[in-house]
Amino acid sequence: MSQTLASKRSAHLRQLIASRVPGHGLPRPFYQEDAVYGTEIDAIWRRGWVFAGHSCQLREPGDYLTLTLDTDPLVVLRDDDGQLRAFHNVCRHRGMILCQEEAGHVGRIVCPYHQWVYGRDGALVSCRGMQEEIDTSELGLRPVHVAELAGLVYISLADEPLPFAPAAELMEPLMRPQRLERAKIAKTVDYEIEANWKLVWENNRECFHCNVNHPQYIKANYDHINADDVSPAVQEQMTVAVTRSEEKWAAAGLAVTHHDTGMCTFPDAERNLWYSANRTAMAEGFVSETLEGRQVAPLMGDYQDSDVGTLRLRTMPNFWNHSSCDHGVTTRLLPAGPRRTRAQVTWLVDESAVEGRDYRVDDLLPFWQLTSEQDWDLCASAQRGVDSRAFVPGPLSTYKEYNVEAFFLWYLRQLTDYCEDN
Amino acid sequence: MSQTLASKRSAHLRQLIASRVPGHGLPRPFYQEDAVYGTEIDAIWRRGWVFAGHSCQLREPGDYLTLTLDTDPLVVLRDDDGQLRAFHNVCRHRGMILCQEEAGHVGRIVCPYHQWVYGRDGALVSCRGMQEEIDTSELGLRPVHVAELAGLVYISLADEPLPFAPAAELMEPLMRPQRLERAKIAKTVDYEIEANWKLVWENNRECFHCNVNHPQYIKANYDHINADDVSPAVQEQMTVAVTRSEEKWAAAGLAVTHHDTGMCTFPDAERNLWYSANRTAMAEGFVSETLEGRQVAPLMGDYQDSDVGTLRLRTMPNFWNHSSCDHGVTTRLLPAGPRRTRAQVTWLVDESAVEGRDYRVDDLLPFWQLTSEQDWDLCASAQRGVDSRAFVPGPLSTYKEYNVEAFFLWYLRQLTDYCEDN
Amino acid sequence: MSQTLASKRSAHLRQLIASRVPGHGLPRPFYQEDAVYGTEIDAIWRRGWVFAGHSCQLREPGDYLTLTLDTDPLVVLRDDDGQLRAFHNVCRHRGMILCQEEAGHVGRIVCPYHQWVYGRDGALVSCRGMQEEIDTSELGLRPVHVAELAGLVYISLADEPLPFAPAAELMEPLMRPQRLERAKIAKTVDYEIEANWKLVWENNRECFHCNVNHPQYIKANYDHINADDVSPAVQEQMTVAVTRSEEKWAAAGLAVTHHDTGMCTFPDAERNLWYSANRTAMAEGFVSETLEGRQVAPLMGDYQDSDVGTLRLRTMPNFWNHSSCDHGVTTRLLPAGPRRTRAQVTWLVDESAVEGRDYRVDDLLPFWQLTSEQDWDLCASAQRGVDSRAFVPGPLSTYKEYNVEAFFLWYLRQLTDYCEDN
Repeated sequence: MSQTLASKRSAHLRQLIASRVPGHGLPRPFYQEDAVYGTEIDAIWRRGWVFAGHSCQLREPGDYLTLTLDTDPLVVLRDDDGQLRAFHNVCRHRGMILCQEEAGHVGRIVCPYHQWVYGRDGALVSCRGMQEEIDTSELGLRPVHVAELAGLVYISLADEPLPFAPAAELMEPLMRPQRLERAKIAKTVDYEIEANWKLVWENNRECFHCNVNHPQYIKANYDHINADDVSPAVQEQMTVAVTRSEEKWAAAGLAVTHHDTGMCTFPDAERNLWYSANRTAMAEGFVSETLEGRQVAPLMGDYQDSDVGTLRLRTMPNFWNHSSCDHGVTTRLLPAGPRRTRAQVTWLVDESAVEGRDYRVDDLLPFWQLTSEQDWDLCASAQRGVDSRAFVPGPLSTYKEYNVEAFFLWYLRQLTDYCEDN
Repeated sequence: MSQTLASKRSAHLRQLIASRVPGHGLPRPFYQEDAVYGTEIDAIWRRGWVFAGHSCQLREPGDYLTLTLDTDPLVVLRDDDGQLRAFHNVCRHRGMILCQEEAGHVGRIVCPYHQWVYGRDGALVSCRGMQEEIDTSELGLRPVHVAELAGLVYISLADEPLPFAPAAELMEPLMRPQRLERAKIAKTVDYEIEANWKLVWENNRECFHCNVNHPQYIKANYDHINADDVSPAVQEQMTVAVTRSEEKWAAAGLAVTHHDTGMCTFPDAERNLWYSANRTAMAEGFVSETLEGRQVAPLMGDYQDSDVGTLRLRTMPNFWNHSSCDHGVTTRLLPAGPRRTRAQVTWLVDESAVEGRDYRVDDLLPFWQLTSEQDWDLCASAQRGVDSRAFVPGPLSTYKEYNVEAFFLWYLRQLTDYCEDN
Repeated sequence: MSQTLASKRSAHLRQLIASRVPGHGLPRPFYQEDAVYGTEIDAIWRRGWVFAGHSCQLREPGDYLTLTLDTDPLVVLRDDDGQLRAFHNVCRHRGMILCQEEAGHVGRIVCPYHQWVYGRDGALVSCRGMQEEIDTSELGLRPVHVAELAGLVYISLADEPLPFAPAAELMEPLMRPQRLERAKIAKTVDYEIEANWKLVWENNRECFHCNVNHPQYIKANYDHINADDVSPAVQEQMTVAVTRSEEKWAAAGLAVTHHDTGMCTFPDAERNLWYSANRTAMAEGFVSETLEGRQVAPLMGDYQDSDVGTLRLRTMPNFWNHSSCDHGVTTRLLPAGPRRTRAQVTWLVDESAVEGRDYRVDDLLPFWQLTSEQDWDLCASAQRGVDSRAFVPGPLSTYKEYNVEAFFLWYLRQLTDYCEDN
């Protein structure tokens, strides 16, 4: 992009940002304009850490998984030393997509077009048919930063990525007993949501909508109850559950970090935090986020007991996970235009669990499949609404949508920082 | 839109308008450009009266119907006082689509997302979970003007809409005996036409194409016969039919306003008339626009006799209706981009008629279903033709396409007036 | 387009052209931008000779075939004098598509909309219903240049087309014995390739990708073997085949123009040649490009013997043909946007051959159907790769991709020449 165009785009963005009323939604152009979307891709998606997949999908050297971030095809694989590597999944010769499957295994990466061969470290090791003058050392795959965190694999397209260590420091201790790195994928479902990626986050960042829209979800959790509507009975129930859990979990080395009804605050614009994790209690009678609350697969990781509450993980801009004693469910978002978001929902169980014997996919799936699909429908409908010329962003509930506001503040800070830097 | 952009757009429009040769079609950009389409939405669709539906769909307080005009979701409903109201169908909180069905009934309007509750008058009556400081009086649904005319429901998105009374004054007396307000919907069919909305009107405004393309239609009507090709025998037939009808109808209080073969002139750019109605005779042997010309449902409204000719109604920019003694057929157009128009065709019968006993949908439908689908195919093919870089707008027949020219003049006047005002 | 816009577009193009590194692929915007695509349409597709179809589809006066080049609907037909004519397939009245089928026969061209009637020479011969003042002599169909070459039909949308004679002079003698003008269509298959048209040519202009991707194709041909990897044994085989063929063919009047492994050079930017033809030997055991190499239909044209090698024809920007003793296969490309190309593959046999008796479509099709579909998949995958922001055009093999470079040079020359002229 030319200097002039970029500065015009920045000026336009600043004006849009300034037009937003604090405590209210974002103005309509944020959900529609190519210029906004393009800036987001640069300012957020190509700058931050993007969840790519689970390390258990990449057990052996040569195991790979692929994803497409906006129009960038990417591949993550385990190299010969057992390290994770990520690359633009594009041949340096004629631009061919290299690894063609969603996930797979390669000896070396051989381009299907003209068989240029790359090592698992991305180096071009052979290009038979090319002239001898070719400097193969200049033609390795274009690398992408990769980081692993207790079984979660992240990539960053930035030249100089944000520090990853603080995220790991906060999240790893809480995640440890779940042992997601020793999980296996039980099921993956892909969705195309006809909505801007921010609408998906706005939906995710509040449980105000849960009462009516998630009849399954609210039976298991306290997220939908806030300071404004918690009854003494519910508060009592919650306190009992948490106190009981705290004692028990403290003994088992499982920390509880969220004691209250409602959702813990995330993300954090002021401290510019894009990661968060906590463990919290589930509703009476629930040991797993399943339709009936019962355990439906063997205990995962280090758990000795089903009463471990629910572990919650989330990182901006594209990941959340709810884990129960017996399984975890991960959602990965990827933007695909101003009005389209791809979501991949993945169910994980312990790596030793055998389908049919130890668990049935039909027991695992419904809770989050229903909840997810209910949300995607809401998001698509909200997109059609914000597309109205009559749409005026309304006020957010300070009781129930504090995290939507938190998301907006974080989001706007990323754009503002980016405009200042560019 | 910025002042500069708007004035650039106006200048471009003026240039395009000036490039049109009188008596000829519109130049190619009128069917393709986003700038033209956007101006049309502002200058015509968001300024004029748009047919929304039939009041018989909204009999009881709480009955609603929805439609989407370009990207604006709208809802029309009957309020507690029995008055019609129309609103942007978008929650003032987070922009959610409120009434999700094509038509339905609501006690109060409850947003499916976070259950904000609006009265049938659009006032926000409850928003549980929101902070007390919220000024609910500022958060009613954004209203849209609505007007009713003998069973037809119109809306206007304009701040200050055009006067509706003249349309009512002209049309109501002619429409009265049909009693469309006491009709019921027998069937609705929705279409997506791959053509600009103006091509649909150009098709509608002449019967030059009828001879070959509408074998069913031309048996019933005289529209396709003009001054240039009417034979003495046909003229005689027409005169006999009209004379007989006039005498009979005068006695019954039914006016005949169109005595000639061909179509009456509409719209009228000079007097800026966007509405028109007339009654005219049908061909010998036809008492209803059905395949064989026979009555296929009970008499509607005040009719005492099947020999009432055909009542024709039309309003710019999106409505026409043909009514026979026993049923009426309404077409509603809505633009959905420069190359896409949504059409809804609705068949109405007397409200007392019972399907299966008094009429069969299979008898009602074919005449206008065939005619409509024949037209939509022609329009889509014309769009592909005007998309050719070789397209040069040709001359219009002064005998047979006077109403296409009338449409162009009316259309161009709307754009010109708008450019002057903006 | 305004003068200013056109000169801005030219400046942008020049900059893009300058950014290309010789011997490397084209930069990413060449495969994505509307501005580039629009210039290509003007500079190449509306300037050069575009293959439209086979004259054997147009045997009798009134036979027609249609095609759409970008957004231009076109028709080619045989007139009353037996001459080929081509026109914009758009009525001069309201822009309707005239000939609606892919191929058909017309007495006169009658517009399906309002029955304007055009002679087979394009003259408007009747427009019943129009006023007498209409000057029909001004309203003939807009003609397009047409040329025929030994059964191949070309059109040019240019006002002053490139000379066609040099192409005919070079190609006709080589094509003569095949007698494509006395062929008949055995089968036509249409494809939509989700790739820029240049990626389809880049794929076509090298056989570097054949070894792995075209297991069927490489058994029949020597194209995939180049100076860098030909073995003495293969060279010997080739020499034997060619020498034997040359002697035999010389006696039969069949010239051999390509003696080597690999592909002959095409196109030729320096001499600005857009056409090429040659005959070459096939692999041992192959007399036809069929899965098993055997003859599957009667000998075509003047051939007396199945051992005629393979005749290769190609013209920029949209045609190639491989012909064997018993059948020919033609590919016609048409651009349909920056990321979409329509391909039509046609199998031809001798006009006297009778399906079921003399040949079976199932024997004819697989070789080129498989090869074509393998290529289209590669092209679509390459498009996804060049859409990556990380895509950097790589070096081309001087051994194996000299014709990709040749294509780029030819392509860039067309753009450069056009920018200079405009």
